[in-house]
Amino acid sequence: MEFRSDNTAGVADEIMAAIAAANSGTAAGYGDDEISRRLEPAYSELFETDVRVFPVLTGTIANALSASVLSPPYGAIFAEAESHIYQDECGAPELFTGGAKLIPLHGEGGKIPPEELRRRVRASGQGFVHAAQAAAFSVTQTSEAGAVYSAGEIAELSAIAKQAGLGVHMDGARFANAVAALNVGNETVSAADLTWRAGVDVLSFGATKNGALGAEAIILFRTELGDEMAFRHKRAGQLASKMRYISAQLAAYIEDGLWLRLAAHANRMCALLAESLGAFENVRLDAFGGANELFVELPGAAIVALREEGFQFYDWPETVGAEAGRRGTIRLVTRFDTKESEVDGLIAAVKRLAG
Amino acid sequence: MEFRSDNTAGVADEIMAAIAAANSGTAAGYGDDEISRRLEPAYSELFETDVRVFPVLTGTIANALSASVLSPPYGAIFAEAESHIYQDECGAPELFTGGAKLIPLHGEGGKIPPEELRRRVRASGQGFVHAAQAAAFSVTQTSEAGAVYSAGEIAELSAIAKQAGLGVHMDGARFANAVAALNVGNETVSAADLTWRAGVDVLSFGATKNGALGAEAIILFRTELGDEMAFRHKRAGQLASKMRYISAQLAAYIEDGLWLRLAAHANRMCALLAESLGAFENVRLDAFGGANELFVELPGAAIVALREEGFQFYDWPETVGAEAGRRGTIRLVTRFDTKESEVDGLIAAVKRLAG
Amino acid sequence: MEFRSDNTAGVADEIMAAIAAANSGTAAGYGDDEISRRLEPAYSELFETDVRVFPVLTGTIANALSASVLSPPYGAIFAEAESHIYQDECGAPELFTGGAKLIPLHGEGGKIPPEELRRRVRASGQGFVHAAQAAAFSVTQTSEAGAVYSAGEIAELSAIAKQAGLGVHMDGARFANAVAALNVGNETVSAADLTWRAGVDVLSFGATKNGALGAEAIILFRTELGDEMAFRHKRAGQLASKMRYISAQLAAYIEDGLWLRLAAHANRMCALLAESLGAFENVRLDAFGGANELFVELPGAAIVALREEGFQFYDWPETVGAEAGRRGTIRLVTRFDTKESEVDGLIAAVKRLAG
Amino acid sequence: MEFRSDNTAGVADEIMAAIAAANSGTAAGYGDDEISRRLEPAYSELFETDVRVFPVLTGTIANALSASVLSPPYGAIFAEAESHIYQDECGAPELFTGGAKLIPLHGEGGKIPPEELRRRVRASGQGFVHAAQAAAFSVTQTSEAGAVYSAGEIAELSAIAKQAGLGVHMDGARFANAVAALNVGNETVSAADLTWRAGVDVLSFGATKNGALGAEAIILFRTELGDEMAFRHKRAGQLASKMRYISAQLAAYIEDGLWLRLAAHANRMCALLAESLGAFENVRLDAFGGANELFVELPGAAIVALREEGFQFYDWPETVGAEAGRRGTIRLVTRFDTKESEVDGLIAAVKRLAG
Repeated sequence: MEFRSDNTAGVADEIMAAIAAANSGTAAGYGDDEISRRLEPAYSELFETDVRVFPVLTGTIANALSASVLSPPYGAIFAEAESHIYQDECGAPELFTGGAKLIPLHGEGGKIPPEELRRRVRASGQGFVHAAQAAAFSVTQTSEAGAVYSAGEIAELSAIAKQAGLGVHMDGARFANAVAALNVGNETVSAADLTWRAGVDVLSFGATKNGALGAEAIILFRTELGDEMAFRHKRAGQLASKMRYISAQLAAYIEDGLWLRLAAHANRMCALLAESLGAFENVRLDAFGGANELFVELPGAAIVALREEGFQFYDWPETVGAEAGRRGTIRLVTRFDTKESEVDGLIAAVKRLAG
Repeated sequence: MEFRSDNTAGVADEIMAAIAAANSGTAAGYGDDEISRRLEPAYSELFETDVRVFPVLTGTIANALSASVLSPPYGAIFAEAESHIYQDECGAPELFTGGAKLIPLHGEGGKIPPEELRRRVRASGQGFVHAAQAAAFSVTQTSEAGAVYSAGEIAELSAIAKQAGLGVHMDGARFANAVAALNVGNETVSAADLTWRAGVDVLSFGATKNGALGAEAIILFRTELGDEMAFRHKRAGQLASKMRYISAQLAAYIEDGLWLRLAAHANRMCALLAESLGAFENVRLDAFGGANELFVELPGAAIVALREEGFQFYDWPETVGAEAGRRGTIRLVTRFDTKESEVDGLIAAVKRLAG
Repeated sequence: MEFRSDNTAGVADEIMAAIAAANSGTAAGYGDDEISRRLEPAYSELFETDVRVFPVLTGTIANALSASVLSPPYGAIFAEAESHIYQDECGAPELFTGGAKLIPLHGEGGKIPPEELRRRVRASGQGFVHAAQAAAFSVTQTSEAGAVYSAGEIAELSAIAKQAGLGVHMDGARFANAVAALNVGNETVSAADLTWRAGVDVLSFGATKNGALGAEAIILFRTELGDEMAFRHKRAGQLASKMRYISAQLAAYIEDGLWLRLAAHANRMCALLAESLGAFENVRLDAFGGANELFVELPGAAIVALREEGFQFYDWPETVGAEAGRRGTIRLVTRFDTKESEVDGLIAAVKRLAG
Repeated sequence: MEFRSDNTAGVADEIMAAIAAANSGTAAGYGDDEISRRLEPAYSELFETDVRVFPVLTGTIANALSASVLSPPYGAIFAEAESHIYQDECGAPELFTGGAKLIPLHGEGGKIPPEELRRRVRASGQGFVHAAQAAAFSVTQTSEAGAVYSAGEIAELSAIAKQAGLGVHMDGARFANAVAALNVGNETVSAADLTWRAGVDVLSFGATKNGALGAEAIILFRTELGDEMAFRHKRAGQLASKMRYISAQLAAYIEDGLWLRLAAHANRMCALLAESLGAFENVRLDAFGGANELFVELPGAAIVALREEGFQFYDWPETVGAEAGRRGTIRLVTRFDTKESEVDGLIAAVKRLAG
């Protein structure tokens, strides 16, 4: 039973159907086809403002290209020390920006405290010729630790960044899970509220983890960045010749709210886990953010036993392996296609081993 | 009727089926799945030698990453002036190599004359600290002009390059068409004969133009380059989290000779065009290379009329638009899914307009 | 006797004196000293317009940093195939621009024909996403072949570049020699006439070859580029901590017309060579441009003999060594400190050997 | 009276004399002159092993080029968070390495604790394709905070780095001050002991702050890196055409122990300050490292008054300005040409204001 990551998921039926539907006749290459041309109107409607859309293959390149239009080569980009853009891209942001410097911010409870951002930008030496020049701020939604920023929290961080002249990027590899998490009960917060209305300039809009085959979109709320991005996107090797098949995924993903339905399911599965596991005696949960990740501390012996029974998940941090003799933390991730039986199975096993 | 490019084609049925088959259950991300793990054995068998395989999204990135492991940042890479790697990647090779210099070679009949390569490398200033250092040679098979190099021609160019200490890259965006073209009648020449046995170190192995959805493979015949490539590949944003769906395409593509069957059809359609069009009075053909591209000179009025009748193709070079008053050249490209009726339609129209 | 290059020269007395004068007491580092602060006013006066001035160590970095503020990483820069910026910087422009593409133009008589520039820019694919985007044009004054462009010729080339939206850079490693050459007899043409009035945006203003110890200046006529340049200049490792000693050279160099006096002497020495050598039977001169370089074809045996007698000079091109059996071409360069006796000695020797 | 930095110093007489002596006759350009050719033998003798020497203009480029031969573009370089290479080069290391990632280490008492290095390298994800790959470690001697590492401390850090496969760089902008500080009394420790014998692969050997006009040397103890460095050095715009004048400085600097005599004087002046200032009631010193920097905490009113009396120095950190109402810290730096009267004057003033 699979709780390693949402990127182990399959492709949603609706998206497979859209790919199949796109496979009819010939079409102009390099994004000049009908399906690709409809992306910008569709996403502009979703975000309630004019946007430019650049389909790409991975979150790595979405983040790195986003950074490249917000920072000069001598720029500094502030991001949480645990975030993908800071530590999991093997230097991609440095490559595509031409050598910008990523500055690690220290998070609390999985989020960046406004004061941390304010303090670090202030100390960064803006205008001082010896220092990399503060150029951009990147926030991850949902955060690496599974936390969900409210629209107000995003807006507060953005305001600090903007006051200092920085561009704002959001890594939304799990943006759908965040939006779904914030729209439970009577709450209503839109994709627009959580991005440009809260000061975000560029969004890495993830689809792959949430049901696509391999498609992310760079969303430019500052549409004037689009001309430059077009050349950077091509030069990065992301202008697919048969773009229609990537665009078809991104189109289907937001049609009729599919993206939020898929994410809401994943979140619900995670909520079930959180509710049950938290009640067991020998189990301690990190605060559950409402999205699809849960960090669970339990006895090392239980972790080892769960693995032996075939449950799959990662130790956290990954570099610290679980041992029978001491408590450990594991990360559980649910997917759009996680079955309730998987969740029930895990709950039963933990109850037996650490209840 | 569509003769613009082979990238306007759809996806071959066998490849769509492979993608669908891959969509079952969960799988480890980032290439650690079963399908991806089988790629290297399968391609090693195809090429009759151990190879490292890196799946990527586009030919642009295949070429640029290939260049990056063959040239230092202060290196020089020799390539035909008309080739994609020289002029159609918006600076991708320069980006991924860290600033290597592309040196344009002048082709004849669509191929690089050995003497041109020898002369330019000799004049390039190897060891002279002021000059970018000759590091690699890139040859395109089939060439930008649709010509097909024989194994002997590749070997001759490679030998010149190697004697000067250069690495050899082959841009094989249409490698399948070249192999198919060289294996007509009683001729037998293998993928190995045309690559590593002829001195090629790294191959951009194209699949997208010939039936895949979006998949190319970087094939390293010098397997020791693989460790470096792994990091460059990730950093370029090409390590897809759901790699299985790209690997499935590349696996199906070479299974049971599919790649050669698809290419052979495209070549055959082009041969039909070449045979018929060449016979018309007002039509002049460039030498037909046997693959799937044909360059046809005909009266401007005929070109205009063909377009009005719905035939789609590009002027050549693209920047020189056809005019009724003077003869022009058009490029015709056939695809794995070109229908014989399309070919017949075009022949009939040309006959009527310029026969 | 020394005719290899003007970079074999010593340092002019006036410049040594200025360095010594600067060596008094302490001074703020990184260009915040009195001498450095006076550079911009002084150069603004020389060029009759407000300029920004960035002192650097070498012509290589002057050219590369100039390119970096005129071209984006995905840009194309047009320059003569023989020019330093194209072929003698070991990839520096590619490094500092972040991977721009240098496009070689073919010169005639040592200069770029306007039509060549027009044609190549037009064919470069502006707006076409697959092509590196035409961004800048670089002209070398005096040219690599020792030719001197008139103000009108510069203006004509610049106009073509500007009409296409390109920035214009001048590599003025030997700008002083060009200005001096154009101000002989009754002619009067100013530094302004030959640069910004003729459309030049950025100038690499050379001093090292013409009497400085090690100092070049990047002159920005588009002063709005200065803020960006300040960071690029620092990042390139060119913001010297004891900048006063570099600035002192650049200040003394243009004081009381020193730069033109020094250059005029070098030019005069070269003119003497041209007048005398051209008269000898077995000697053929390339057109003498009026500056300080002369290309002389003479019997190989004479070249060998000159070397044996201790004359120092380079074969041209350097990669083609002179041989006794066939005629060869040598480059002769005169310096601000070339003695008339050196010139006389060479003339006498050539007369004896090839007269 | 001047205590801002040692880069406010003038040029030592011996070095001015060497420059003047070099200014005789012509000499081959680009380092092919007699003076430049003697550098490697001289420095090999100084360091008691074969070294390659590359003269450069600034410490910024010495550090950045050093990094570029120790780290691939996808590498990670560990350095103290306060060090120049981490925070004062405006992104130069990122530029010249092609985008390597600088990882900040936290110092204690101005030095990097071995455990901090060990822990951070271990957590860096070596072999994990998503992480920038640990490639190099850079240590600053004397450190940014004026501390001096013993040979044993360097060796311990290097051993940790080497065990993990990292190259070791030393930023020796003030290496002379460190060596002089470690050779007081009966102590004897050589330049070799503090570098290659302690595991250092590449040294940025500073001269500018300690009496040169503008010259630093990159010293390669791993001589096999020299061929690559030659091209990177040229490409960085550091191959000066009149190299003899830079080489003359570097030659004179180490002749007859000049570098250590100059540094010893600066250190002595600082020791005088430390001895006297530490005795005053309202003054608190950071531990004095024995080199030429001293950090002094005193009442804000005293800081303001000192400035009014004409004493020059920086607040520390620079971004926190001194105020009359609260205590502040200032940095005092002595130079090879600091006069004892300057020191006496400062001591008297502090005594009066805060004694």
